[in-house]
Amino acid sequence: MSYCNRLDERDTFTYALVLLGYCLFLFPVTVSAQTLADGLGYPSGTKLIIVHADDLGETHAVNAAAIKALERGSINSASLMVPCPWFPEIADYATSHPDVDFGLHLTVTSERVYYRWGPVADADKVPSLLDKYRFFYHDWEHNQHINPKEVEIELHAQIERALAMGVRPTHLDSHQYRLIMNGKELFDVLLRVAHEYKLPVFVTRDWFADHPYLQQSLGPGDIVLDHTVTIGPEVPAEKWAEFYILELKNLKPGVTEFVIHPGFDDEELRAATRERSTWGSAWRQRDFDFFTSDQFRQILLQENIKLITWRDLAKMAARK
Amino acid sequence: MSYCNRLDERDTFTYALVLLGYCLFLFPVTVSAQTLADGLGYPSGTKLIIVHADDLGETHAVNAAAIKALERGSINSASLMVPCPWFPEIADYATSHPDVDFGLHLTVTSERVYYRWGPVADADKVPSLLDKYRFFYHDWEHNQHINPKEVEIELHAQIERALAMGVRPTHLDSHQYRLIMNGKELFDVLLRVAHEYKLPVFVTRDWFADHPYLQQSLGPGDIVLDHTVTIGPEVPAEKWAEFYILELKNLKPGVTEFVIHPGFDDEELRAATRERSTWGSAWRQRDFDFFTSDQFRQILLQENIKLITWRDLAKMAARK
Repeated sequence: MSYCNRLDERDTFTYALVLLGYCLFLFPVTVSAQTLADGLGYPSGTKLIIVHADDLGETHAVNAAAIKALERGSINSASLMVPCPWFPEIADYATSHPDVDFGLHLTVTSERVYYRWGPVADADKVPSLLDKYRFFYHDWEHNQHINPKEVEIELHAQIERALAMGVRPTHLDSHQYRLIMNGKELFDVLLRVAHEYKLPVFVTRDWFADHPYLQQSLGPGDIVLDHTVTIGPEVPAEKWAEFYILELKNLKPGVTEFVIHPGFDDEELRAATRERSTWGSAWRQRDFDFFTSDQFRQILLQENIKLITWRDLAKMAARK
Repeated sequence: MSYCNRLDERDTFTYALVLLGYCLFLFPVTVSAQTLADGLGYPSGTKLIIVHADDLGETHAVNAAAIKALERGSINSASLMVPCPWFPEIADYATSHPDVDFGLHLTVTSERVYYRWGPVADADKVPSLLDKYRFFYHDWEHNQHINPKEVEIELHAQIERALAMGVRPTHLDSHQYRLIMNGKELFDVLLRVAHEYKLPVFVTRDWFADHPYLQQSLGPGDIVLDHTVTIGPEVPAEKWAEFYILELKNLKPGVTEFVIHPGFDDEELRAATRERSTWGSAWRQRDFDFFTSDQFRQILLQENIKLITWRDLAKMAARK
């Protein structure tokens, strides 16, 4: 082999490596749609859903509705807001029901007006997260500086409180998608904390187009769901069931998380959410009503939709 | 005047001063029972009461019941728990109803089990007040070390948050009487903070026998109520009205604060207080029911009992 030939071979190898690196950059080897279903032992084309309740711990009315729906089997996964006043109630339930699929709904905002909460970490260690009354910000202004190091401190504090109180989370997600949709720095904090605690994070490839940094940061060991469905303010109250039925009938193969917000439309929830109707008390009652209805169960059977949980996904990932 | 005479005069003067000091030590010149009624412009022997609701801010059901009773005129004073999740709701009401007699119910415990709260101050500045989950302690053990300096930091933080949110308190009192009944050091902190903000503190001479340090610490400018009435767990539910009626019929002259705990016996309050019935949901509904009843109003008329507020007392003290 001449020196030139060796050089050529090295060049070809280097070129291949560069190409591979570029491809990995564009299409990181996350656990793909097909791989998730395969890994769970389902045939190709199977439609799998997680019916996931958000915001447990925020109010009693949300805890009570979620517990009722979980016990009926109507929802099969949920996540808990550690900084919220009713977290001890749902933590108590979680510790006495260790098989229930509970994650942590990591929370860095306090979006209501008449009912609020602040950090689990020392307030003086997370000043960029707090308003002048030392609650989490109601909302973030465009381009508001949120210090990623402070977010990391707060996420650790939330997870450590949950663990200390006996909760064994199956996954992490982000309240109001704050740590998903607000740039690479905050997403990287979320991902780093998730890796540290060996917990999957709720991410779906539906979000990659608008937030390409998600795909750049995710690695081959990270679980990525195929799709997510959540109802929005554009759906009028009388079309609630119709929206979900259509989504279920048009469901794509792979794993889809339905992010829902069940709650009981009672005095507490009406008062806690009264400043706006979006994600309010009647909204949450409608979610509870649809997902505990016979209609919902029948559609799952009709459409041959299977229910899976984050515990199933985490077990699958651990086997790899 | 001889030197001896002058010495004698000085001796007599010194003796009088010592005697006065001793008398002041034993009987400090607080604003007395008679003086309070006199100062308010009522004839000697008048029976005056403050009907005071505790624990506003703790839950929505307590806020809603207190607001309803205040607007009916059935209660005429209340105090707010700043560290609690529903404080923003009652602070909003207080700022839009600046004439209502609201004090701050300074809070250093979180006595419930399924629903909890922590400090307003930075958690790392008040470690002796916090349990392993960084909530205020559910309860204090006998001889537990509570650092008075940390209590002072926390009280400042609570008052500053209330002021920042627009509340203009008329008085201070202590949730679960923690800062009254737990020794001179904590009471002195409460009194020092009250003086700093020029606010009266709820103290009654009923407590002097069991807690003599109260009388030692109080000065001539401090308001001291004559009596207080609060219902206890020894009263069965069916004797609720009977207890209050008897107390009102046997009321002594001077100023008496009825410390009551109105609330609506609904899903939220039942869940928040479910670990024990004392000061629970049904208890609070009974208080609401009695103090908003026609029977209560009739007894006030029959017994010629007058209603006063902390605002009246503070104005009187300011005139002195």
